Amino acid sequence: MRRKVYVEGPREGIRVPFQEVELSDGNEPVRLYDTSGPGGSPLPALRAPWATGRTQLASARAGVVTSEMEFVAIRENVPAELVRAEIAAGRAVLPANRNHPESEPMVIGSRFLVKVNANIGTSAVTSSVDAEVDKLTWATRWGADTVMDLSTGPHIHETREAIIRNSPVPIGTVPIYQALEKVKGDPVKLTWPLFRDTIVEQAEQGVDYMTVHAGVLRAYTPLTTSRVTGIVSRGGSIMAAWCQAHQQENFLYENFDEMCALFAGYDITFSLGDGLRPGSIADANDEAQFAELRTLGELTHRAWAYDVQVMVEGPGHVPMHKIKENVDLQVELCGGAPFYTLGPLTTDIAPAYDHITSAIGAAMIGMFGTAMLCYVTPKEHLGLPDRDDVKAGMIAYKIAAHAADLAKGHPGAQAWDDALSKARFEFRWEDQFELALDPETARSFHDETLPAEAAKTAHFCSMCGPKFCSMKISHEIRAQAPL
Amino acid sequence: MRRKVYVEGPREGIRVPFQEVELSDGNEPVRLYDTSGPGGSPLPALRAPWATGRTQLASARAGVVTSEMEFVAIRENVPAELVRAEIAAGRAVLPANRNHPESEPMVIGSRFLVKVNANIGTSAVTSSVDAEVDKLTWATRWGADTVMDLSTGPHIHETREAIIRNSPVPIGTVPIYQALEKVKGDPVKLTWPLFRDTIVEQAEQGVDYMTVHAGVLRAYTPLTTSRVTGIVSRGGSIMAAWCQAHQQENFLYENFDEMCALFAGYDITFSLGDGLRPGSIADANDEAQFAELRTLGELTHRAWAYDVQVMVEGPGHVPMHKIKENVDLQVELCGGAPFYTLGPLTTDIAPAYDHITSAIGAAMIGMFGTAMLCYVTPKEHLGLPDRDDVKAGMIAYKIAAHAADLAKGHPGAQAWDDALSKARFEFRWEDQFELALDPETARSFHDETLPAEAAKTAHFCSMCGPKFCSMKISHEIRAQAPL
Repeated sequence: MRRKVYVEGPREGIRVPFQEVELSDGNEPVRLYDTSGPGGSPLPALRAPWATGRTQLASARAGVVTSEMEFVAIRENVPAELVRAEIAAGRAVLPANRNHPESEPMVIGSRFLVKVNANIGTSAVTSSVDAEVDKLTWATRWGADTVMDLSTGPHIHETREAIIRNSPVPIGTVPIYQALEKVKGDPVKLTWPLFRDTIVEQAEQGVDYMTVHAGVLRAYTPLTTSRVTGIVSRGGSIMAAWCQAHQQENFLYENFDEMCALFAGYDITFSLGDGLRPGSIADANDEAQFAELRTLGELTHRAWAYDVQVMVEGPGHVPMHKIKENVDLQVELCGGAPFYTLGPLTTDIAPAYDHITSAIGAAMIGMFGTAMLCYVTPKEHLGLPDRDDVKAGMIAYKIAAHAADLAKGHPGAQAWDDALSKARFEFRWEDQFELALDPETARSFHDETLPAEAAKTAHFCSMCGPKFCSMKISHEIRAQAPL
Repeated sequence: MRRKVYVEGPREGIRVPFQEVELSDGNEPVRLYDTSGPGGSPLPALRAPWATGRTQLASARAGVVTSEMEFVAIRENVPAELVRAEIAAGRAVLPANRNHPESEPMVIGSRFLVKVNANIGTSAVTSSVDAEVDKLTWATRWGADTVMDLSTGPHIHETREAIIRNSPVPIGTVPIYQALEKVKGDPVKLTWPLFRDTIVEQAEQGVDYMTVHAGVLRAYTPLTTSRVTGIVSRGGSIMAAWCQAHQQENFLYENFDEMCALFAGYDITFSLGDGLRPGSIADANDEAQFAELRTLGELTHRAWAYDVQVMVEGPGHVPMHKIKENVDLQVELCGGAPFYTLGPLTTDIAPAYDHITSAIGAAMIGMFGTAMLCYVTPKEHLGLPDRDDVKAGMIAYKIAAHAADLAKGHPGAQAWDDALSKARFEFRWEDQFELALDPETARSFHDETLPAEAAKTAHFCSMCGPKFCSMKISHEIRAQAPL
């Protein structure tokens, strides 16, 4: 059985949630990281009493361990000082807009558990506010560490308000989408003042991190013209179109310092968008992509000067043998700022299964040091994800993230695997189901052929039947000889 | 549209099947590897006229390019001499029992396309002969390069006969399963003569490769007693139980030379079973596993002395950072004989999704040089796979194999990705669907929100809607400026 438990912190008011899995036969319970939040609507303003005038980065640099840092240290089972030091060095971020006090603190950095972001949001073609809030709750129930509201079309403001007030995890956005709606979809009509107003509107609502495509410089567009799939980032294509129409430099780049000052006022974290990420295997690791990455490195350092936290977004579509180069270059150019990648998809041939093509790349890039993985659902390239797609994407990415945690030797990560494998070997079927990433589905698969209650302690399943169960024979071998 | 085409070889009677995908707008058709066979039941005896008295290995060593080698050279788009040389060196196998003339030749080796095996078969608890033949046809329709019939329970002989006569791909078995049925499930009653009779029975039917657990030596069982999951290979546990009961060495090891002579008579390929493979992350790369691998290396060289082809089986459950060591050690110990691995699963926490936990490991181990991947279905650890599970496992593994082909730079592999991505960028939706690994599912996902025929050429989908399509904007950018 699973139940929510809270671990009290050293300071008043710090109560860190975990899912505790109770096991049978005297086995110790296993505690799992829990992103599902306290429930109820609207959520309580957990972080309101902890407010200070400083950003998390400014505090960390001043040697101060904030309440948020204490919280995530318990959550990650690491010393609070490690959290502070990694944030101070820019190698980790703790996205926490002071206007989103409902969020439970979490940290994103290569020294911590690999995180997963779920994208939700309406499009002009489909979806509703209620459906998106439902997707939010559903995504965090399956372990989403952050959620990006990528709504376009009408009702963007209302959708976002509903999402933030109901979200126990940090919320990210791509403000250019709303800015474009304000100019009725014509990129040429975008202006810095209009974009700035949009940022302020979203900042006031409590958006924790924002993707800005400030690295799509005017000079880089020609680098994309010989590509198989051109520019595949929405924000990237919008800014490239603007630069081309006006024959001017990207206004996000030109006004980056003003944006930094604004972000610092709310403690909003930059997610520096990779507007020129490759959209196909053919375009991976090309000059357009890496030229932009160099600019993102420059912008990372500029943001840090304002005490603003920074993540850097990464690809996209990359064959396996070209994945590591992405991480190595990003770490070098961006001073170790957390890498936040979309997949990458390791082949283009499987639309409808890109949660799998990309889980392969995501696990590998996580092993190499990527701090957060943006999930890809089965609907990628084909349509807007529904509730089932959100779950499928989350499951694939929790697998990728945990596989990466194991490969990085994250302290405690393997305890979950060991507990499940021990339950499996001891034929504690119910324990095995409860420890599974998706208990309900594991149980239903087993019960398709062996639904009887007695089968829950049986020393075999329908895969091999009673005579051919290797683990049953293994126990008999152990029982017969003191080897 | 897809249709089957045949490419004629330089010799009489060599006609190599491909799936040809016809594309619109003057784009060149794309030819895909095709494992689905000619259809009909029983299948024609394609290879009957090509019979020689020698094994493929003996022919290759004698400098002879057999008709089977010509066939696979066309299939792989490589020189026939490369096929011959790799087989001669033991780095590739061409499993082709002379009593299975219905099979279309294929090659397994690290210099060739990464192959996928699908396991099917009845268990004592469930399934029927017809259901298994249906799974065979279904698996090859989704790209299975070989199929293993792992039937246990009653009707093993009849099930296998039906499978072989209907199979256009090589069939593998684990003869110890049938031998155990003959002694009513008591491993202690197994004997070499009984096992030998079982091999002969299966050899006569036309089994192309057989898994034998000859490397599970008596001395290795104690190495498994401190494991979290003991012995998880069925064959491995049976042989360990036999050794323990009789206090004698494994009779498969003791009679290995006789087995080699027997295999040579039919040109059966060894698949040297890894009876001590790790069944959990905790047990990966341990001494039990690698002790057996050293013995498999010894057996590989012994088999080669009889002109018998050899593959070597590998794990299992292995965290990502320990995968490469498996390949490197296998290549070193087994003289480059093709590695044939089950996954590996990169975490234990996701029963019901082990097609994904293992596709990650499979793609990586394929990149490192594994020649064939044994698929894992969502039912792994929970029950016998049904038709839907077979498809899910196949899709995940075709993705892993192709991702590995890309990473290895296999000639021509990327042409498929490029054709699909070009179709995507040019909004040729029908071409994109037809090129997809699973056209029907890709089409249905798209049509969930945009079923109208006009949407099949529309410059957007429901994911982003018309205003936010990056690729549409990308085209406008290209159109407006001669950059």
